[in-house]
Amino acid sequence: MPSDRSPRCRALPNSLTAPHRLLVEPLVRAALLEDIGHGGDLTSDAILPIDLRAQGSIVSRAQGVVCGLDAARLAFELLDPSAEFHVLRTDGSSVDAGTAVARIRCSARALLTGERTALNLVCRLSGIATATRRLVDLAAGTHAQIVCTRKTTPGLRVLEKYAVRCGGGFNHRFGLDDAVLIKDNHIAIAGSIQSAVEAARARAGHMIKIEVEVDTPDQLLQALALPIDAVLLDNMDTETLRACVQTVAGRVVTEASGSISPERVAAVARTGVDLISSGWITHSAPAMDFGLDIA
Amino acid sequence: MPSDRSPRCRALPNSLTAPHRLLVEPLVRAALLEDIGHGGDLTSDAILPIDLRAQGSIVSRAQGVVCGLDAARLAFELLDPSAEFHVLRTDGSSVDAGTAVARIRCSARALLTGERTALNLVCRLSGIATATRRLVDLAAGTHAQIVCTRKTTPGLRVLEKYAVRCGGGFNHRFGLDDAVLIKDNHIAIAGSIQSAVEAARARAGHMIKIEVEVDTPDQLLQALALPIDAVLLDNMDTETLRACVQTVAGRVVTEASGSISPERVAAVARTGVDLISSGWITHSAPAMDFGLDIA
Amino acid sequence: MPSDRSPRCRALPNSLTAPHRLLVEPLVRAALLEDIGHGGDLTSDAILPIDLRAQGSIVSRAQGVVCGLDAARLAFELLDPSAEFHVLRTDGSSVDAGTAVARIRCSARALLTGERTALNLVCRLSGIATATRRLVDLAAGTHAQIVCTRKTTPGLRVLEKYAVRCGGGFNHRFGLDDAVLIKDNHIAIAGSIQSAVEAARARAGHMIKIEVEVDTPDQLLQALALPIDAVLLDNMDTETLRACVQTVAGRVVTEASGSISPERVAAVARTGVDLISSGWITHSAPAMDFGLDIA
Amino acid sequence: MPSDRSPRCRALPNSLTAPHRLLVEPLVRAALLEDIGHGGDLTSDAILPIDLRAQGSIVSRAQGVVCGLDAARLAFELLDPSAEFHVLRTDGSSVDAGTAVARIRCSARALLTGERTALNLVCRLSGIATATRRLVDLAAGTHAQIVCTRKTTPGLRVLEKYAVRCGGGFNHRFGLDDAVLIKDNHIAIAGSIQSAVEAARARAGHMIKIEVEVDTPDQLLQALALPIDAVLLDNMDTETLRACVQTVAGRVVTEASGSISPERVAAVARTGVDLISSGWITHSAPAMDFGLDIA
Amino acid sequence: MPSDRSPRCRALPNSLTAPHRLLVEPLVRAALLEDIGHGGDLTSDAILPIDLRAQGSIVSRAQGVVCGLDAARLAFELLDPSAEFHVLRTDGSSVDAGTAVARIRCSARALLTGERTALNLVCRLSGIATATRRLVDLAAGTHAQIVCTRKTTPGLRVLEKYAVRCGGGFNHRFGLDDAVLIKDNHIAIAGSIQSAVEAARARAGHMIKIEVEVDTPDQLLQALALPIDAVLLDNMDTETLRACVQTVAGRVVTEASGSISPERVAAVARTGVDLISSGWITHSAPAMDFGLDIA
Amino acid sequence: MPSDRSPRCRALPNSLTAPHRLLVEPLVRAALLEDIGHGGDLTSDAILPIDLRAQGSIVSRAQGVVCGLDAARLAFELLDPSAEFHVLRTDGSSVDAGTAVARIRCSARALLTGERTALNLVCRLSGIATATRRLVDLAAGTHAQIVCTRKTTPGLRVLEKYAVRCGGGFNHRFGLDDAVLIKDNHIAIAGSIQSAVEAARARAGHMIKIEVEVDTPDQLLQALALPIDAVLLDNMDTETLRACVQTVAGRVVTEASGSISPERVAAVARTGVDLISSGWITHSAPAMDFGLDIA
Repeated sequence: MPSDRSPRCRALPNSLTAPHRLLVEPLVRAALLEDIGHGGDLTSDAILPIDLRAQGSIVSRAQGVVCGLDAARLAFELLDPSAEFHVLRTDGSSVDAGTAVARIRCSARALLTGERTALNLVCRLSGIATATRRLVDLAAGTHAQIVCTRKTTPGLRVLEKYAVRCGGGFNHRFGLDDAVLIKDNHIAIAGSIQSAVEAARARAGHMIKIEVEVDTPDQLLQALALPIDAVLLDNMDTETLRACVQTVAGRVVTEASGSISPERVAAVARTGVDLISSGWITHSAPAMDFGLDIA
Repeated sequence: MPSDRSPRCRALPNSLTAPHRLLVEPLVRAALLEDIGHGGDLTSDAILPIDLRAQGSIVSRAQGVVCGLDAARLAFELLDPSAEFHVLRTDGSSVDAGTAVARIRCSARALLTGERTALNLVCRLSGIATATRRLVDLAAGTHAQIVCTRKTTPGLRVLEKYAVRCGGGFNHRFGLDDAVLIKDNHIAIAGSIQSAVEAARARAGHMIKIEVEVDTPDQLLQALALPIDAVLLDNMDTETLRACVQTVAGRVVTEASGSISPERVAAVARTGVDLISSGWITHSAPAMDFGLDIA
Repeated sequence: MPSDRSPRCRALPNSLTAPHRLLVEPLVRAALLEDIGHGGDLTSDAILPIDLRAQGSIVSRAQGVVCGLDAARLAFELLDPSAEFHVLRTDGSSVDAGTAVARIRCSARALLTGERTALNLVCRLSGIATATRRLVDLAAGTHAQIVCTRKTTPGLRVLEKYAVRCGGGFNHRFGLDDAVLIKDNHIAIAGSIQSAVEAARARAGHMIKIEVEVDTPDQLLQALALPIDAVLLDNMDTETLRACVQTVAGRVVTEASGSISPERVAAVARTGVDLISSGWITHSAPAMDFGLDIA
Repeated sequence: MPSDRSPRCRALPNSLTAPHRLLVEPLVRAALLEDIGHGGDLTSDAILPIDLRAQGSIVSRAQGVVCGLDAARLAFELLDPSAEFHVLRTDGSSVDAGTAVARIRCSARALLTGERTALNLVCRLSGIATATRRLVDLAAGTHAQIVCTRKTTPGLRVLEKYAVRCGGGFNHRFGLDDAVLIKDNHIAIAGSIQSAVEAARARAGHMIKIEVEVDTPDQLLQALALPIDAVLLDNMDTETLRACVQTVAGRVVTEASGSISPERVAAVARTGVDLISSGWITHSAPAMDFGLDIA
Repeated sequence: MPSDRSPRCRALPNSLTAPHRLLVEPLVRAALLEDIGHGGDLTSDAILPIDLRAQGSIVSRAQGVVCGLDAARLAFELLDPSAEFHVLRTDGSSVDAGTAVARIRCSARALLTGERTALNLVCRLSGIATATRRLVDLAAGTHAQIVCTRKTTPGLRVLEKYAVRCGGGFNHRFGLDDAVLIKDNHIAIAGSIQSAVEAARARAGHMIKIEVEVDTPDQLLQALALPIDAVLLDNMDTETLRACVQTVAGRVVTEASGSISPERVAAVARTGVDLISSGWITHSAPAMDFGLDIA
Repeated sequence: MPSDRSPRCRALPNSLTAPHRLLVEPLVRAALLEDIGHGGDLTSDAILPIDLRAQGSIVSRAQGVVCGLDAARLAFELLDPSAEFHVLRTDGSSVDAGTAVARIRCSARALLTGERTALNLVCRLSGIATATRRLVDLAAGTHAQIVCTRKTTPGLRVLEKYAVRCGGGFNHRFGLDDAVLIKDNHIAIAGSIQSAVEAARARAGHMIKIEVEVDTPDQLLQALALPIDAVLLDNMDTETLRACVQTVAGRVVTEASGSISPERVAAVARTGVDLISSGWITHSAPAMDFGLDIA
């Protein structure tokens, strides 16, 4: 059984706050519409009496970290405004297989029509939270934080970033507009790290941080001579990474990136790097299995 | 190197047809907006001259089946209507690592701003196509078709179903409205398989097929006595499955479902079942890695 | 007075279920916005005190089958969330002129502002239900079902298909994506019925049925030799139709189509055909008149 | 054969102008999406080669007034941006059965996928234009104009109002926000015609006209004493109508409404009334039949 | 302290009616989404406990006319459906600096997250209402009405037109579709005032008024010979304006326009003109300052 | 005549880049739809021949800084895809009254229908750019930058932030999600500056900066002891401000805010503060007058 949430994420919200709801409802609505098409749920409409109410539970079929219950709640509420949805294990909780994490009472039709949409959301988000928690646990004992990337599923970023937080990770940029991250291609076109950083500094507002991707110790030295806030040490072996972290010596934030497999996380974390970013936790985390049991 | 597309998928389209484009453009637009937020691409806007044009290639970083190039094309065209996007390897092609699958020429800003959105789409869809192809190849030599489920990513079903086809698989229901699938929970509430099927038959139009999920040979016998088109043999071991297929004896379509791992697919296929449905190919297929190389 | 609903539609829902509501609310909202424009209801806003509440009834002005009350309910609820809407005669009921079918209590402004939108919906949908019921009654005593087509009003298909069900009819395809219907133009381009059916069979999933349109007994024979589920016997005179039904002899579903006037329905039904499809019930059914009486 | 457009509509546009296009494209897009669902056109995608181009004509199957060709054009252009659409008979033209009114050249898939949506629009709008023209012709020789009402199909008002103009009619209010029309229910709640008109006059801007519905000669006298612009003479027999028109004596615009059947239009027009409004031309006009012939 | 609402606006609504709400909610929702971006309110989410409720007041920081409280209410309700919003001074009220105009009780996060959106709306709309009231007061003692123009903020017209009414002004056209206003450019292209008016009269429905812009007494004479409803006397000095009003002698409505500064309004009003239109009250009115005080 | 753009804004874009276009087109489309309503431009449609093309120029009627031409371009292009729009003076240019800043050639109807929407955008945005430039010029000779706030027009923030940049200013936060700004109300609820900063620091990702609002020198000292990036010195008189800047001594960024009138800007800038933020430049800048001259 994995550690129950590490101290640093104890304060995390276990439900989506209002502004998130404004963002999430359109996604859930679109997911329902994608499933019911234009003809509606032929099976449930034919078989289930219109006035019948039913009760069900969302139950884990594997061990992991639950996430996405508020999105699931919306799926049932959009189908049946009188639906009652009780969270039994809050987002971010570690659960074993067989744990009921939420209980729903609503019309039988809404229950079965909304089932797949709700489970698709919970399974994916819990998969991400679980993968994140795995990396967080592997980095335990170091000060390295696990952070996500922009390699998220198109359309679901707000939820997937939330899942990372529920897993104990931290969020990197939400998008292209909340920080400057100068990557190899920018440098190639700008001609040099220096010209790229200077252009960015001249344009960015005072609340914007600048991070620069470097691939070699030499590039690192160039970057450290400039007014930057963080360096992304990309695709370095563990030894090079450790040396680079020592070179930085705390002057800017250090982030390790590239080929961050679970097998390698602990070693990377022990280099002293501040952050370890992983695309894998969002783009390739296997879904965590959940089912809907009718009570 | 995996087989190049099996005969049955040679006729598959390698680009999205017009009606799909109507469905896909909103998804790509939303994905771009999710990434550029309200402030735009701070980095590219600061560093790249507004009139500079650039050229890049989408290059595979792993072996697999490419998918999603038309969605990627839209990402660049929406940012720069003058973008030129040349497909080098059509959707559904097997490629080795290091293969350029598309070449783009557009404004440098559009190229770097659209990069992540385009790659997120291609990586995910190619991951699905690759996972599907893997199962298809494992079932080679039998007549079993690999089919997907409704366990798709909320909002991306139309693309993920397409990726399954590009991998050589077939689509099951697109949603709740194009066929009747009577599952255990429907039966439980209806009281019996018979009453559920009768209710569905009385309501469904003449173009709607009915499939029934059965968990045991006994349930199968009940189902076969009713006017149905297919049976979903759920979570059966290989021996039971084979026996059930023999019981059916071609009277209805047979579908195996549940715990369909790559390890088990070949054995399942050899039971003689018509279809093998897999949620794994859409909900847990790892992304296939692609990058954007500036030329 | 027409028959009260034939036995086969007794089980029909008399209110829209949850997933339909997700589809219908945007239509009703758009209809209201189309009517109130940007300036709002100049007349009611000027004349009616903002706090005044009022009560009204939707009353039939003709004999027919009522349909669309849930859509009408939404019109008032969207304008006044505290609106009370009581259904007095459920969708699918046969009513005489002068029957109050629903009673509304809400703000006076909402009542008069929503009146036209609500009535436009009820009048059109009841017109369709009434026309359908007329054909259903004319085919009474045969086993022929009346089915609709895709000749529906752009934007209102989900409601018009529902109205057909309320009239005792059945739905054909909801759209292009839930079944294959091979028509003359497809055959012309494919070269033959055989090549068209084979192409469709190779691509369609196992839950998809295939219907072929045939215009002559000769084409029928070609079609019957292929793996199809239904034949659409198009524009045939009654004698030819009867002969074709006998040729089919129950091997596939038979559907008669083309020039299905009320005058001819009974004769067509007596040919033994399974289905009679009518575009007239959706594209040309005259509206059934309803008014709003202030109580 | 009906008259070719009466002089007063010679100046009517025969294509939608730019602002209308902004309004119409979303309607056509929604209509296409309603038809292609999420799975796309299963039949055409399976049978028609992706690169095949085809040509077809929209051909009338009945006599009447054509309308809606620009909306049809959009249906094909949205599916295939390279579609060529040639108008052969402009909106508002009287045509006999068998007349090709437009020719389309585009991908074969777009042609067959868009066919139904395009025809649904043209058939409905031409039905309205034809019904309008019929009333216009029946009122020929008088100065009475035929005007439409707000009894239009939810979502399609902008197109249906256009169809009325193409038929030679004139538009009444577009919605609740472009003029004041005080109806019986407003008067009932306001207490008197006088108080209703005074309230409206006090609130309405200087560009807003006021019309009052009156049911009796006595009400007409009350209304004429107030600062109004028009009277709607509702549900009066021909004699009463003629008397009322004489009472008005040109001081305000007169409009006859209620029970305006084709049978009665000529007699109503000869009363000298300025306008004859008809809900029938929009809510109950039978569709005019058109088909798509592949060339 | 300015006059409390002049008699003519006593009957004005002090809250938005239902149809307006349908129009306003999308605006407020979009404004919130624009502010919370995709990441949400980083500050409030980090600092404020999720379950904490708080209370605040919207307090004027200047003297003026309050407007927009219903829009502000929506901002909080969209973030927290359980929010309580009490209006203390209704829209249209004159208030001194330091007046609490509304009290809100909701979650602390919703309060601080919604604060800026709510205030942005109230400050802008109150600024417009205040500017309008200033002109209305300056024209007191004459019969001239202050009217707004179409020079409103893109996207906010429905609210800004409402603010003008709350300030005691009247609305001119809501848009291009509710009346005909023939301006200099139309005349230039049409060739003459006469041809422009005749074209408009031939096309406009009977509920549409026609106003003509004239720049000189000579043009006025041309216009008065035609069937028009109003003249816009554009950019005339006070003497010319007075002469034109006398020429009109009440035959049509007269409107003065152009360079309507507060300094000049009284003189313009004393010319006897019916209407004085001002773009300044919507495009350049300074915001009225309000703050949110936590209680 | 104001300075032509200060050196620091020479590099500013003078047209919106692709991602901005994705954000701006919906705004312009909505603005057009708001103006044309459902009936379209009654005046232009009646008077201007459908095929007539025309040419016009957008001409300044005052001195100032032009901004918004790309938004104006979209207004005409959305109405007439064949419109040609030539920028004569790029966004950010200082112009005198009477300067043609853009020339348009398109259909006469599109020109007059789009005129008001285009001008409303250009007048507002140029007003903001002009007001910003005024403050920038007043702060010339110091190192203080002028920055905007979130006090923007609901729905137009992306454009108004751009106008500030065109005026030579810099952008503060785009929204609540790109940086932490701890204000008085947050501190009040959190209990102390320290607890608020610690909570924010514990939750914020590494790319997020933290700024704290302080009202007194004492609060400043508390803030400086904490890990923050900037202080907002709110509503301080010039002397206090100068003292606070000296206290900070460059350790964090300093921002002056509150009551920043043009009269006071120079004095504030001379205190040595890094940034001066002004709500006035967005919420109360008077529109800069532009007109459309038909050529």
